[in-house]
Amino acid sequence: MRQFVVIGHDAPTTAEFSLDDLAGGAGRLDVLCRCVTSAFALSHDIREDVRVHLVLGDEYTITFEGKNLRRLNPDERSTAALIRGALAERGEAIGHQPAESSPGVSITRRGFEPTLADAGRDGTVVQLHEDGDPVVDVPVPSDPVFVLSDHRDFAEREAGLLADRADERVRLGPERLHADHAITVAHNYLDTRGFERY
Amino acid sequence: MRQFVVIGHDAPTTAEFSLDDLAGGAGRLDVLCRCVTSAFALSHDIREDVRVHLVLGDEYTITFEGKNLRRLNPDERSTAALIRGALAERGEAIGHQPAESSPGVSITRRGFEPTLADAGRDGTVVQLHEDGDPVVDVPVPSDPVFVLSDHRDFAEREAGLLADRADERVRLGPERLHADHAITVAHNYLDTRGFERY
Repeated sequence: MRQFVVIGHDAPTTAEFSLDDLAGGAGRLDVLCRCVTSAFALSHDIREDVRVHLVLGDEYTITFEGKNLRRLNPDERSTAALIRGALAERGEAIGHQPAESSPGVSITRRGFEPTLADAGRDGTVVQLHEDGDPVVDVPVPSDPVFVLSDHRDFAEREAGLLADRADERVRLGPERLHADHAITVAHNYLDTRGFERY
Repeated sequence: MRQFVVIGHDAPTTAEFSLDDLAGGAGRLDVLCRCVTSAFALSHDIREDVRVHLVLGDEYTITFEGKNLRRLNPDERSTAALIRGALAERGEAIGHQPAESSPGVSITRRGFEPTLADAGRDGTVVQLHEDGDPVVDVPVPSDPVFVLSDHRDFAEREAGLLADRADERVRLGPERLHADHAITVAHNYLDTRGFERY
C-alpha cells in the first residue's frame, strides 16, 4: 500500500464553490485534484493499492481508496466534483466516523494530526524535503506514507509534527516540484524497484 | 534544451470550444493541458530551457517556448485558454510561418511530420515505448526530443514515422503512464543526472 497525505492550505471546506473556478474561487483546489490523478491514474487503469488523504483547512480529510474507487477521471474538473460531493456530506461525518459520498471517496471530520497518525500506523512516513537524502540512497519502504503540501510550504506546526513522525526525509531530485509531480516521481521510483539500477 | 512533441488525436482545431468542458466537448484537451504544465512548471518557477509542441488533429501545431513564456498557470483551464487563444490566430499562420498569440505561445499550420522533422533537427529523438530499453541503460542525450501521444495510441502512420526518426526507444518503467506523467518522470531522470546513481 502506498499512501499520500496532501495538505490543502487554500482549499474549500464547504461544497459552495464553482467547478468553473478551481484555481481561484475554490482556493487552489486544482492542485489537490492533480494530486489525486497522479496518485491513481495509469494509462487506462487505476492503481488499486493506493490511498490518498486530502486534508482541507485542517478541518476535514477526504480519503480516496484505490481498491473501491469508481468514477475517477483524470481531468481536474471531474475530480473536483468528487471532492465537492464529499464536502456536501460533511454533516454526516460525526466524530472520526467517515461518511462515504461515492464509491471509494469518504470524508472525516479531522485535520492533519489525526490523519497522519492514522495513515502512519501501518506504514513508513516519508517527508519529501529539499534537504532530505537523495531517494536513491534510502531503502525503499514497503508501505510508504508520503506527506506533501499544496502550493504553500508546510506551516510551522505541520512541519514540527511531520519532523516528529517522519521515519525518512527524502529528496526526489535537485528541482522543487509541484506536489502532483512529486507523487508521479515517487511512484516511478517505487515502480522501478527491480530495474537493474537497484 | 528539452523538447516534447505531444500528438493530440482528439483535440480541437478551432477556438470554438468551452473552457467548462475540456474533457468532453473539447475532445481530450485536458490531457494536453496537463502535458504543458508537466513540461514547464516547477514550484514557483518555470523551466526556461524547454519547448513543447502540441500537434492538433495533424493540422496545426501550437508551440510553447519556455524562455519567452508568460501567463502560464498550472491549472488546466488557464492553459486551455492559452491554446484557445492560439487557435483563434490560426488564420494568421500562413505556410510554415508561426503566428504568436501570447508571449511564448505560437501556432503554425503543420502536422506531425514537419513538426517532428523541425524539432529533431537539433536534438535526439526519443520514443517512449513499453518495449523500449530501460531509461537507466540509455546514455542521456543532451538535447532530447520526447515524442508522446495523448490518451490514444499512436496511429499507424505516426508510429511508422517515429520509428524511422527515433534515435532511441526508451521505457520509463514497468507501468504505462499518462503522457503528462511520463513528461514528469522524463524530467526527473534528466534532472538527477549527477545524482550518484549515474
